[in-house]
Amino acid sequence: MKDPNCLFCKIVAGDIPAETLVRDEAAMALMDIGPLAEGHVLLIPTGHYQTLDEMPPDEAAAMLRHLPSLVRAVQAATGCEGVNVLQNNGPVAHQVVMHVHVHIIPRNTGDAFSFNWPAGTYPQGKMETLAQAIRKHLPGGAE
Amino acid sequence: MKDPNCLFCKIVAGDIPAETLVRDEAAMALMDIGPLAEGHVLLIPTGHYQTLDEMPPDEAAAMLRHLPSLVRAVQAATGCEGVNVLQNNGPVAHQVVMHVHVHIIPRNTGDAFSFNWPAGTYPQGKMETLAQAIRKHLPGGAE
Repeated sequence: MKDPNCLFCKIVAGDIPAETLVRDEAAMALMDIGPLAEGHVLLIPTGHYQTLDEMPPDEAAAMLRHLPSLVRAVQAATGCEGVNVLQNNGPVAHQVVMHVHVHIIPRNTGDAFSFNWPAGTYPQGKMETLAQAIRKHLPGGAE
Repeated sequence: MKDPNCLFCKIVAGDIPAETLVRDEAAMALMDIGPLAEGHVLLIPTGHYQTLDEMPPDEAAAMLRHLPSLVRAVQAATGCEGVNVLQNNGPVAHQVVMHVHVHIIPRNTGDAFSFNWPAGTYPQGKMETLAQAIRKHLPGGAE
């Protein structure tokens, strides 16, 4: 266990029971006990990282490679019309448990979970300036 | 180009310009031109898959391994308080372009993008039944 006070570390360690779907060295998938829809699944890394940006790329890849089969299985089992995959970093983004977790949320017409999509546009030149700033912070990025 | 009518395949092929942040064999990251917040980034596979469940695990992993560094760079460049990573499968889940894409959405207190969290509970036995059904559809799963 990496963090003795972390709910998901306790689940990974087997100290708190969970309805487990997948378990390997890198990751665990389990049923969310507070589901947004029937069949809501969580995918978590076995290592303790508070947010996704803290994860080494190899560990993130080893966890996230389970997503296609999980989405497929949730769709097949529930017959849902679509699926949102949602991973929240930070309280402002609706993260409650501070151990990385990916929500796999079955969606159907008229269901309870929803979000808006207030797409905006950039003023001339702004997107390019932001892109330059982001590139500077990427590995090897100094364009 | 895998699908000549696909917007993202055209971007991958270089036939439509994009503000590119990352490009390798498996994936491309670019600025979303209709951002939910300044610094909204898209991560897409170079191969054409409509939804995540269609992707081979290796290709999904090769794409998704970029997420930690992208989230970190977006945070560093924008100074945002948090980040949502959101991937929509199917129109009901708000997928518009039918080529897999992962949204990296900077979040700040009081910003425009939002979602509800109508968490429910399962009646006795229901979660276990659903878990059994999901396991049956996972690779090698016949529990």
